[in-house]
Amino acid sequence: MRAFTVVMAGGGGSRFWPLSRQEYPKQLLNLSGRDIMLNDTILRMEPVISRTNAYIVTNAAQEKLTKKLLAARIPKRHVLAEPARRNTAPCILYAALMLKKKYGEAVMCVLPADHFIADEEAYRACIKEAMGIAKKTDGLVTIGIRPDCPATGYGYIACGEKLPKTEAYRAAAFREKPDRETAKGYLSSGNYLWNAGIFVWKISSILAAYQAHLPAMYEEMMKLYDDIGTKYETQRLESVYPLLENISVDYGIMEKAEEVYVLPCDCGWNDVGSLDALALMLPKDTDGNAIRGNAMVQDSKGCIVSAGKRLVAVTGCEDLMVIDTEDALLVCPKDRAQDVRKIAERLETEQRSEG
Amino acid sequence: MRAFTVVMAGGGGSRFWPLSRQEYPKQLLNLSGRDIMLNDTILRMEPVISRTNAYIVTNAAQEKLTKKLLAARIPKRHVLAEPARRNTAPCILYAALMLKKKYGEAVMCVLPADHFIADEEAYRACIKEAMGIAKKTDGLVTIGIRPDCPATGYGYIACGEKLPKTEAYRAAAFREKPDRETAKGYLSSGNYLWNAGIFVWKISSILAAYQAHLPAMYEEMMKLYDDIGTKYETQRLESVYPLLENISVDYGIMEKAEEVYVLPCDCGWNDVGSLDALALMLPKDTDGNAIRGNAMVQDSKGCIVSAGKRLVAVTGCEDLMVIDTEDALLVCPKDRAQDVRKIAERLETEQRSEG
Repeated sequence: MRAFTVVMAGGGGSRFWPLSRQEYPKQLLNLSGRDIMLNDTILRMEPVISRTNAYIVTNAAQEKLTKKLLAARIPKRHVLAEPARRNTAPCILYAALMLKKKYGEAVMCVLPADHFIADEEAYRACIKEAMGIAKKTDGLVTIGIRPDCPATGYGYIACGEKLPKTEAYRAAAFREKPDRETAKGYLSSGNYLWNAGIFVWKISSILAAYQAHLPAMYEEMMKLYDDIGTKYETQRLESVYPLLENISVDYGIMEKAEEVYVLPCDCGWNDVGSLDALALMLPKDTDGNAIRGNAMVQDSKGCIVSAGKRLVAVTGCEDLMVIDTEDALLVCPKDRAQDVRKIAERLETEQRSEG
Repeated sequence: MRAFTVVMAGGGGSRFWPLSRQEYPKQLLNLSGRDIMLNDTILRMEPVISRTNAYIVTNAAQEKLTKKLLAARIPKRHVLAEPARRNTAPCILYAALMLKKKYGEAVMCVLPADHFIADEEAYRACIKEAMGIAKKTDGLVTIGIRPDCPATGYGYIACGEKLPKTEAYRAAAFREKPDRETAKGYLSSGNYLWNAGIFVWKISSILAAYQAHLPAMYEEMMKLYDDIGTKYETQRLESVYPLLENISVDYGIMEKAEEVYVLPCDCGWNDVGSLDALALMLPKDTDGNAIRGNAMVQDSKGCIVSAGKRLVAVTGCEDLMVIDTEDALLVCPKDRAQDVRKIAERLETEQRSEG
């Protein structure tokens, strides 16, 4: 059975200001110094699924830049553009229908475009096993990250009974972002995993699930099934897409489907939800400062300094983030990384000039 | 008797990096948002001595930029250029000889180009009284700032007996920068004043003092006295100046002269010795953040944020300095302002590119 990677790459990026902007979102940034996150996501899969079998779903506003930054890595016609921003359920349905039309049955790995994986071997081993389970069953498989702290920023998945001869469990329940106390309980129970938004299934399995649990969305999209791959596709999509429910695949499908499996994974996963995640991705000096660009950091500990060509000198600071770009600069303690979104929003409200 | 202002404006500025550079020293910076420090120094004196009676001594390397930034404030021919960097003794002797040649006897106020004065009325009142004393006596008068803390970065002047019918004292002793304990003793005695490097005297008085206490320097410079104001002045100065002793007027003259007076002054003086002095000079928000330029400062206290056109966002910080310029950025706690010199020096050593 053929296998495809579908990367969901339509996000904005106010939490990564000033590196990211509305028109320059996180997945299009080179945070690691290696490549943009979107390309990293595709290339990381290569030993399992070739990049020629990779598709990207982005939105119309980011389509052009996405195609440009992909360079020659995957064919430009593998970039699908949503005509309106919706949540993950419509996006995945569109990709599944496109794959069915083009290839018939296949295994489909759905990946967020902007996550970081420290241990890629472990990650690929897990994806491979998930693909095996997806082929053998009609189930929907998701990767569950084993938590190492009581994070309140992630959804959790409760493990049910073990699936024989595999490392997977039945997913007993999906839980929204918990409060601190609840998260502590999840962590100590050892029975909960973080929901990383990574999904593996057969096309037939996921389409059956849409038909059962989001029938209106399924019917609406099926109206344009015949036009997929024709010159009418874009136009039909533009008329249908804005009518679709704004709902996540977790909420619309995963929480309701009968046969859902979760496969625990220890791969140093991070959703790169705020700027402090740069500390994971950049090389560190002996004082634990994560540095890139033309930076001079001295008498400092645990800082994140992201410079461009302009010299950035940081001295006598601790756990501070200094994020410099051509037209804007951010200085903020690491533990206030969540506040960055507020700045980006305030800037938008005030229509403030950045340089 | 005519009176002249002579501003000593030949300093470098490694402690003000990245705002100042070797070729762009502190006195040529607009720190207050009003004007460059050199112009402020001249204009602050205007009610006492007109700017048409102001002279500037700088060095050859800074002559061009100094003339440019003075704009139309004072005649360009009032900018004297030292052909080599020497200390204050040669600089003041050169200015005194030039004034004598041009105007005969006069009162001469020698001012550093890069100090800040909060209370300009009090400052001018003190200068006026010093001028009166200088005229009536043959003494050398200096302004002594009443200390409000046991500063270890300034020299001190011990007050001797009171000069009748004035606020001045005989200067009993000049003390170099003390250690902390000594400085505390000076402060609690109430008998010591900070040496601000501000001097007032008649030309005849100071020339007599050079003749008595720095006779070699005096003789050397007198060799070119006849050439001052002629086309030979620059050439003769170039041959004589590098031979002169590298010595301060404090050490070479003031500590040795017989008739030295010190006039106490409370004028909110600051020598702007390091970047944290910006806090005195810039407008503050309600959280005590001193801000200028395109800056957005929130949830922060006691910071100094100097931005240009580029947006600088600072959030969640305390007592931090963020100094942004076109080609370099500095981030450093206020209480580490002294370390800035080290950065500038390291940059020079490493010949590092700033942008």
